[in-house]
Amino acid sequence: MLHYIHISSRTRNELIDITGRVAELVGNSGVTSGLCQVFALHTTAGITINEGADPAVQRDIAGFLATLVPVDAHFSHSEGNSDSHVKATLAGASQTIIIEGGRLLLGTWQAVYFCEFDGPRARKVAVKIMPDP
Amino acid sequence: MLHYIHISSRTRNELIDITGRVAELVGNSGVTSGLCQVFALHTTAGITINEGADPAVQRDIAGFLATLVPVDAHFSHSEGNSDSHVKATLAGASQTIIIEGGRLLLGTWQAVYFCEFDGPRARKVAVKIMPDP
Amino acid sequence: MLHYIHISSRTRNELIDITGRVAELVGNSGVTSGLCQVFALHTTAGITINEGADPAVQRDIAGFLATLVPVDAHFSHSEGNSDSHVKATLAGASQTIIIEGGRLLLGTWQAVYFCEFDGPRARKVAVKIMPDP
Repeated sequence: MLHYIHISSRTRNELIDITGRVAELVGNSGVTSGLCQVFALHTTAGITINEGADPAVQRDIAGFLATLVPVDAHFSHSEGNSDSHVKATLAGASQTIIIEGGRLLLGTWQAVYFCEFDGPRARKVAVKIMPDP
Repeated sequence: MLHYIHISSRTRNELIDITGRVAELVGNSGVTSGLCQVFALHTTAGITINEGADPAVQRDIAGFLATLVPVDAHFSHSEGNSDSHVKATLAGASQTIIIEGGRLLLGTWQAVYFCEFDGPRARKVAVKIMPDP
Repeated sequence: MLHYIHISSRTRNELIDITGRVAELVGNSGVTSGLCQVFALHTTAGITINEGADPAVQRDIAGFLATLVPVDAHFSHSEGNSDSHVKATLAGASQTIIIEGGRLLLGTWQAVYFCEFDGPRARKVAVKIMPDP
């Protein structure tokens, strides 16, 4: 089962919580046990799993990465967004989440985030649900 | 097949080798070919694959990440462990390992590590073994 | 289905595009829908997904990571390549890619890269293709 989530980011660097949308796809699939692959179809974005309780955490992560990989480092790519590409590699293009009991198996504080590193843009995330054989 | 590994970390930043425990679960499962998903159920920890031979490597990795993401960077999250959350995103919450011939398919020097970034704590790792269809 | 890709890297830090070789394995497998696991069997290398259009991007990523994790940081591992191990953890040992319609499901600009962090060396990447049940 393959689905797509459409996202409109609003700033250059931000983490957008998509846990509810992924969980809904898993719930509707009827799959009780398997794997869920959440994959960002872009080269200046990624997927990460981190704290969902305090919004300050997602801002701290996006902000720290923006400082760690400055826009004006010595890059040669002419589009001027090489920092975005580096951050995409650091976060990773996708995350694999276990499905158990018909739900995403996440820790108490874990949420699934789309990581925008070159917004604002319209973005697309593929969500594949693979049941156990 | 879903299992849990329980870990007691002893310092704030450390890599703990869990290769033997994951390999034992795979061996006991009777699965000869498939995928093994190793997933940290926490937002200030992660899973990584790196050298298992020289213990200096795991200390170098944990130490470098601690220097790269300092505790006292300009964070807003009130719990004071935003550096731990950033490191969790850099390492990644999970790793997917191929199962072949009834064993984890790892390179000669590769080991599976639980990455503690806000210890000491009691931690839980989910290990899902998915056989080929 | 398990296959191996053999790679000869030419410099210490470089990203090598292996998209065509992975895509060929998927095409030849006859699998129309599933997951493809691309796994570097080394502790000083990794796999990442990033832009394939402009070669400057892969040089910018390899170059930035080399600056971020300097060879001469305060490491204790006696082989002198702890920077390579840190970069392997930052990039990640593997990537999981969705297979749909008999092909890798990648965004328009996405390519699959082998990340060399301690070359030049002869390297091996495992590619597992798991069909839907």
